[in-house]
Amino acid sequence: MSSTQTFDIPKECNAGVVVNEGPDFHIEVQKVPVPEIGPDDVLIKLNATGLCQSDLHFMQGDWGLGFMSEHGTKCAGHEGAGVIVKIGENVKSMKVGDRAGFKPIADTCGTCEHCQTTKECYCSGAVFTGLHTDGTYKQYVKSPARYTSLIPDGVSDYVAGPIMCSASTIYTSLKESGLRAGQWAVFPGGGGGVGIQGVQLADAMGFRPIVVDTGDERKKLALELGAEHFVDFKTSSDVTAEVLKLTDGIGAHGVFVTAPQSYGTALTFIGTRVGAVVMCIALPAAGTNNMTVVPAQMVFKNQSIKGTLVSNMADVQETLQFAKRGKLRLKPTVVGLSKFNEAVQDLKNGKVAGRMVVDFNME
Amino acid sequence: MSSTQTFDIPKECNAGVVVNEGPDFHIEVQKVPVPEIGPDDVLIKLNATGLCQSDLHFMQGDWGLGFMSEHGTKCAGHEGAGVIVKIGENVKSMKVGDRAGFKPIADTCGTCEHCQTTKECYCSGAVFTGLHTDGTYKQYVKSPARYTSLIPDGVSDYVAGPIMCSASTIYTSLKESGLRAGQWAVFPGGGGGVGIQGVQLADAMGFRPIVVDTGDERKKLALELGAEHFVDFKTSSDVTAEVLKLTDGIGAHGVFVTAPQSYGTALTFIGTRVGAVVMCIALPAAGTNNMTVVPAQMVFKNQSIKGTLVSNMADVQETLQFAKRGKLRLKPTVVGLSKFNEAVQDLKNGKVAGRMVVDFNME
Amino acid sequence: MSSTQTFDIPKECNAGVVVNEGPDFHIEVQKVPVPEIGPDDVLIKLNATGLCQSDLHFMQGDWGLGFMSEHGTKCAGHEGAGVIVKIGENVKSMKVGDRAGFKPIADTCGTCEHCQTTKECYCSGAVFTGLHTDGTYKQYVKSPARYTSLIPDGVSDYVAGPIMCSASTIYTSLKESGLRAGQWAVFPGGGGGVGIQGVQLADAMGFRPIVVDTGDERKKLALELGAEHFVDFKTSSDVTAEVLKLTDGIGAHGVFVTAPQSYGTALTFIGTRVGAVVMCIALPAAGTNNMTVVPAQMVFKNQSIKGTLVSNMADVQETLQFAKRGKLRLKPTVVGLSKFNEAVQDLKNGKVAGRMVVDFNME
Amino acid sequence: MSSTQTFDIPKECNAGVVVNEGPDFHIEVQKVPVPEIGPDDVLIKLNATGLCQSDLHFMQGDWGLGFMSEHGTKCAGHEGAGVIVKIGENVKSMKVGDRAGFKPIADTCGTCEHCQTTKECYCSGAVFTGLHTDGTYKQYVKSPARYTSLIPDGVSDYVAGPIMCSASTIYTSLKESGLRAGQWAVFPGGGGGVGIQGVQLADAMGFRPIVVDTGDERKKLALELGAEHFVDFKTSSDVTAEVLKLTDGIGAHGVFVTAPQSYGTALTFIGTRVGAVVMCIALPAAGTNNMTVVPAQMVFKNQSIKGTLVSNMADVQETLQFAKRGKLRLKPTVVGLSKFNEAVQDLKNGKVAGRMVVDFNME
Repeated sequence: MSSTQTFDIPKECNAGVVVNEGPDFHIEVQKVPVPEIGPDDVLIKLNATGLCQSDLHFMQGDWGLGFMSEHGTKCAGHEGAGVIVKIGENVKSMKVGDRAGFKPIADTCGTCEHCQTTKECYCSGAVFTGLHTDGTYKQYVKSPARYTSLIPDGVSDYVAGPIMCSASTIYTSLKESGLRAGQWAVFPGGGGGVGIQGVQLADAMGFRPIVVDTGDERKKLALELGAEHFVDFKTSSDVTAEVLKLTDGIGAHGVFVTAPQSYGTALTFIGTRVGAVVMCIALPAAGTNNMTVVPAQMVFKNQSIKGTLVSNMADVQETLQFAKRGKLRLKPTVVGLSKFNEAVQDLKNGKVAGRMVVDFNME
Repeated sequence: MSSTQTFDIPKECNAGVVVNEGPDFHIEVQKVPVPEIGPDDVLIKLNATGLCQSDLHFMQGDWGLGFMSEHGTKCAGHEGAGVIVKIGENVKSMKVGDRAGFKPIADTCGTCEHCQTTKECYCSGAVFTGLHTDGTYKQYVKSPARYTSLIPDGVSDYVAGPIMCSASTIYTSLKESGLRAGQWAVFPGGGGGVGIQGVQLADAMGFRPIVVDTGDERKKLALELGAEHFVDFKTSSDVTAEVLKLTDGIGAHGVFVTAPQSYGTALTFIGTRVGAVVMCIALPAAGTNNMTVVPAQMVFKNQSIKGTLVSNMADVQETLQFAKRGKLRLKPTVVGLSKFNEAVQDLKNGKVAGRMVVDFNME
Repeated sequence: MSSTQTFDIPKECNAGVVVNEGPDFHIEVQKVPVPEIGPDDVLIKLNATGLCQSDLHFMQGDWGLGFMSEHGTKCAGHEGAGVIVKIGENVKSMKVGDRAGFKPIADTCGTCEHCQTTKECYCSGAVFTGLHTDGTYKQYVKSPARYTSLIPDGVSDYVAGPIMCSASTIYTSLKESGLRAGQWAVFPGGGGGVGIQGVQLADAMGFRPIVVDTGDERKKLALELGAEHFVDFKTSSDVTAEVLKLTDGIGAHGVFVTAPQSYGTALTFIGTRVGAVVMCIALPAAGTNNMTVVPAQMVFKNQSIKGTLVSNMADVQETLQFAKRGKLRLKPTVVGLSKFNEAVQDLKNGKVAGRMVVDFNME
Repeated sequence: MSSTQTFDIPKECNAGVVVNEGPDFHIEVQKVPVPEIGPDDVLIKLNATGLCQSDLHFMQGDWGLGFMSEHGTKCAGHEGAGVIVKIGENVKSMKVGDRAGFKPIADTCGTCEHCQTTKECYCSGAVFTGLHTDGTYKQYVKSPARYTSLIPDGVSDYVAGPIMCSASTIYTSLKESGLRAGQWAVFPGGGGGVGIQGVQLADAMGFRPIVVDTGDERKKLALELGAEHFVDFKTSSDVTAEVLKLTDGIGAHGVFVTAPQSYGTALTFIGTRVGAVVMCIALPAAGTNNMTVVPAQMVFKNQSIKGTLVSNMADVQETLQFAKRGKLRLKPTVVGLSKFNEAVQDLKNGKVAGRMVVDFNME
């Protein structure tokens, strides 16, 4: 494969580096080295990175996972979109100039049972982006070609970035839930970054989304993007009762938990619906938000609880196709580098409706 | 359909009636009326009834379900086998002389969504045998023809009785678990009545059963009937570690909880196995044995928890076919009427290995 | 259940009786007796009957199935909608005044393996409406309560009638195809009665419908009701090439054959798509339109061919719910009794776009 | 990873080279060069190669696929087992001394939709072993590490070789058939190389295998290795009637066609079984053995036809595990190099019962 495009690659690039890791961290835009690539890698120049709750946990350290032990630049972020500016000598499946994304899992072993069965995100050798390796808060990232997702025309970088993690993650959960077209899908926290993409994908799959969240802005957004109903947990006198009433009086077929604090009520939203499922997506801080499961509820109603982590390569492509077809009309709030820290702090303080994206090419 | 067989039907029959319902109940063999049948019913003369943990809960009242509010004879029991001795005038699908069983669900509405989709045991109109209506501790029982299971030749009443509930219940759980041939199935309490049938069915489905239970008698039985390994929870220094070691060092693909007190450890047996499932079958006394689920375990390992109640009509037939083919070689302990109470008390006191059956035709 | 509604039931009613069965049959509106019902039946007064290709085959006798051997009134038709005007004494699940439909299968045995596993339309005792028993070309029909489908509010009789057969039949095929949201579904003959309902349901399930049919009227209808593309087989220079081009250059994920003459090309529409399926729905006249399958195509591309007959009780309800939600916006051509024969002849001569319905209350 | 084992690698090795490609080909043992490997490859020294019908088609050229256009040594064969004697500098997932196999697909692109979804054998860039590249009729073969299957202890090379293609191919077909434990699986040609492995795997999965083949030797082998019944097509007066009789009078749940000439009768073996499937595995010579499908059979009985090619990486490992557990007790006929041609000719002439293997270390 040949390419007529060439790119000048600088020695250094901008990055949103975490300072003072822990509960009071902040982000500082610094110059960091552009990585060297190996023969099987590509170098991606990111135009945009999404901001995700997981980033906060990594930088706060409250999942107890450790952060960046083996790297120095301390860049979080795991959903970026840009263009390939350099390829390693063995790379044949992509070329300079191709658009590409960077995902929450930067690489996997490629040969284990999970890697062979579309479950590669569960590979024990999975390298977590922005945790084990530099993330997308840095403009230039190295990615192994075989685990790099190409971005099709018709999907902007602002949309493609968040698809790399949040949209594809919820898509995988929707698929694994086993729900069918015509069934009720409840999204506690569905006005937030991950949830709002889930609402649109659920709608595109024929499910009937209900969002449980708060505020007029989130309500407007949710209803505009495919939610059939919106339950405001701050103004409702009884959220569960309201959800049950909307879902034929008995409960949802599926509940998709993208906000950790919703684990406490998630099981109430499936009520007495036979065969219903609560899908776990959000990761609470360690030791918080455990669920208490009464076996009799599971048994008498054939109910289940299931977790999914992030998406595999194939589901990322499928999610991109939904976006390309206009079914995922993400309207992120876009800020430039100068607002990097402010945006991350807003996310931390729960001030963000929908998804937030940093544009590396904007001041 | 015609039949050359005729049966004399008495006015009264023997029954194991519960006396002093509650924690100190006992069983007294009394004469009770033989039921009248309607035009769509059959009358079954039971030769054998299995004894099941659920019977104890009904008679002890500790599931808080109430007992026999609408019937007077107070007969528990929900797994019986015998012969049809009389049919209603509309009945065409079976005839006098056919062998038939009586199941934990005596009848369902037949027209709701669940009844139409093989989930009839979750019908809100389901009549629970030995709870809402007279059970199989009575020799003559009335059963609607359309919800009566015929018993094929080659399966004795001693085996067919327990299949009506325990074996078919665990069979449904095995099917719904999604396990495939070659995968590890752990049975905490697998030396007991339900578990030991699960072990055999799991073996017949190509799964690899491991029993966690105690005692040499149960060990011998389990290994003889298909378990690949037996872990004695009384003599093992670390049951979970032992199970993990046996299951490739990472945990089982499926855990089938047939003993309520095992819910506490069930989630440890799936360890870090990606995609593993804990199947809930046992019903703990209300308020006891809840499970604490850490969402991160579900999410990071794609694990799930699922419940199933009892079997549908079709799965009962499939289970009977396994028995017919010799794959379910149940060796119940059989006692006569005079030992009815003693047998039930033994079950209550955990003295029974495998399944116990009362033969109505034996003193 | 009680009802305040009562209905006067006449002795005779209007019916579209077939005269001169065989290739040159015609329909004559005659007075025929209103049927008596048994204790488990309901009497439905139909307001509307759909007209279906299968009716033609029954009346022409070209499927070699025989017609009405045991009944005298010779009424075809198998998709009707109306109101229950009388119930048998045992009926508890429905009441006089409930809206109800009459389906292509009038009754099943209720107790066989198929009846127990949602496959009741394959019951060997299935009674085919309008073939083995009187069909919906007659205003008053007897139906067993347990196999009668209630119609929810918000679905008119004109829409509900065709749902009883054509829409629910294609819905079952769509479900059994295993297609997922985002995949290509090709409908040869998709502008016709069954196909156009398939297009809408496919759209509601997130599939991407392509119709292969002819004429501007059908094109307009198809595109309006959810088809993404329309290929006119009369004006196209190469239909298969056009379908392949539209489906990423390789072929559809699923092809839904609702027109018998399309079996010849159906396999070409899946092209080289790995895992694609051709779903057989249409029933050709005996000995015609067989498919020639090259095993290597199946093997090298993991492709399959599968047939489905009609819908089960549960799928009929699900289809009705799609209609209730406005996802099945059928716009049938409605005629009165005086045009009964003319409408059937139009159908026979391929002059009908979309579905045709006869209103029994219209002259 | 380090290894204490080292191997002397010769410049040349023995190979069974095809001479006079076409209908009258023969095999000549010659010295050919040992291949050089790249940084991501391993060099496998094969101890054994299975002989497979596909080899004959490649060498005869009757599938019209062309043979070895880009390689000079003209070695067929695609199921080999041996030991890794050298690894490329980038290889980390395996080491010198590991046992490894060589499969019918030597490599795939690794990045397409199929490679990402366990369907890599359908990758358009798949390199067919013994057709596009040198096969296992040569002792030393080059294999990309990421597409090399390791062989666990407890499985001999004589067994592991045929697992690489035939056993794993039929295993994938058994899995994709959707059959459940307790259902009838018919194997026309089940006494042959692929079929006999299918019989054992079907048995291990709880299916009930019936072999349709001929001869006392094959009958003995089939019944010994798990077939419940054997129908001799030469001595039976009506093979189909016999199969239907054995399968509850109605037909098998699944038919697994491993002999091309069986396509003609395969559809008769599923009879009227609702939901039954014919699985296509065998590849007939081009233009021969097409199937005539009557759509009405598919429709009225919910039947299907499906093809599968070979196994993916994961299924190969699962098949090896069945062998390790003694569930695949292959007893191949083993010959040395001096009998290479004779063995291939015997296979061509249908003289082989079960699988045949050439041992490279035997004269």
